[in-house]
Amino acid sequence: MVNYPNKLNRRLISNKTETQVTDFANRGMSFETAINATNDYYLSRGLAVIHKKPTPVQIVKVDYPRRSRAKIVEAYFRHASTTDYSGVYRGYYIDFEAKETRQKNSFPLKNFHQHQIDHMAHVLEQQGICFVLLHFSISQQTFLLPAKSLIAFYTEVKGQKSMPLDYIKKHGYPIEQGAFPQIPYLDIIEKKFVRR
Amino acid sequence: MVNYPNKLNRRLISNKTETQVTDFANRGMSFETAINATNDYYLSRGLAVIHKKPTPVQIVKVDYPRRSRAKIVEAYFRHASTTDYSGVYRGYYIDFEAKETRQKNSFPLKNFHQHQIDHMAHVLEQQGICFVLLHFSISQQTFLLPAKSLIAFYTEVKGQKSMPLDYIKKHGYPIEQGAFPQIPYLDIIEKKFVRR
Repeated sequence: MVNYPNKLNRRLISNKTETQVTDFANRGMSFETAINATNDYYLSRGLAVIHKKPTPVQIVKVDYPRRSRAKIVEAYFRHASTTDYSGVYRGYYIDFEAKETRQKNSFPLKNFHQHQIDHMAHVLEQQGICFVLLHFSISQQTFLLPAKSLIAFYTEVKGQKSMPLDYIKKHGYPIEQGAFPQIPYLDIIEKKFVRR
Repeated sequence: MVNYPNKLNRRLISNKTETQVTDFANRGMSFETAINATNDYYLSRGLAVIHKKPTPVQIVKVDYPRRSRAKIVEAYFRHASTTDYSGVYRGYYIDFEAKETRQKNSFPLKNFHQHQIDHMAHVLEQQGICFVLLHFSISQQTFLLPAKSLIAFYTEVKGQKSMPLDYIKKHGYPIEQGAFPQIPYLDIIEKKFVRR
C-alpha cells in the first residue's frame, strides 16, 4: 500500500523542478515493481482492482517436515498461458502483459508466446480491454500498445523478430512516468478504450 | 480442451435415463477439475475466457543444472490474496472462488481468508461480477452464492464458524450438474447478474 503523504508531497514538489526525480529507474525500481506499485496505488484509492498473477510453477515434489509447513523441494517454471496482469476497472475487464527491452529502436517479439497472443485474441472477442505495456529501459520510454495492434503485427509479419519503435509509436500511446502512480496507464484506458 | 463428440453423445443420451451418470464425482472428477473442464468448455465455444490463477508460491532457491532447465529446490505455498478464478464474459469482469466441504448442513468459513473477503468487496466496488461456488460433496449439491451475501454473513456474524445451508439456499442459486459443461455457472450469471 502506498501511504506516505510526506514523501508524496516531497516527490510532487520535486517533480515540478526536476522531472528525472520521478523516474522509477532512478529510484532503483524495476519496471515490474513500478507497475505493481501503480496497481497498489489504484487499489488503495479505490480506482481499480488489478493484480499480477502468480508465476506459474509445476510442483513435482513436496516435503512435509514435522512441526513445520510444507516445503516444495522440486518444481519447475512453466510458460504462462495467459497474460501477467488482470483485473477490473469501473466494470471493465482489464488484461495486459508488461515487458521491457534494452534495445533502442525495436521490441523483440520473443517476449511474447503464441499462447499469450491467442489469449489476447480471446479476451478481445469477449470485449475485454487488452494491451501490452512496453518499456524501453535505455531511453526510459513506456508505451501502451493495444492488443489488436500487437496481434496484427505478430500475425501479419510472421518471421519478423522484432517490432519497430515506429510501429509502436504509430499504433500505441506514450505513458508519461509520474510520481504517484508511477505508470498511470489507466489515464489512457479512460481516454481511449472506455465506451461512453 | 473438451472435444470428444462420441463420448459427449453417449453422455447426453445416458443423461436422459440416469441422472447420476453426469455427476462429475461419479466420473472420478474433483470439484476443481470439473470447474476447469467447464472453463475449457466455455473457452473452446467462445463463450467466456475464465482461468484459474496459478498457485501462489514463494520461491526461495533455484538451481541451474548444466544443460537443463532451472529447477526450484526450495519454495513454500503462500496464501492467495485474491480469488482463484477470474476472466471476462461478454465484457463483464468475472471473479470467483470455489470451495467444497464434506459437511452436510453448513459451510465452514475457514475456507475463506479475510484477504479474499476484502478482495471480493473491492471487486464489487468496481462493478465486477463476484461470487463463490460452494460444493457439498456428500449430497453432490453445488450453489452459486453472490459475494455480497458471503461478505454480509462473514462480516455480520463474526465468530460464526460456518454458514448454514439454509442461508446459502436463501441467498444463492443451485447449479444443476450437466454433462457439458459440468458446472454451468454462466447460465446463472446470464440470468441473474448481467445488466440489460
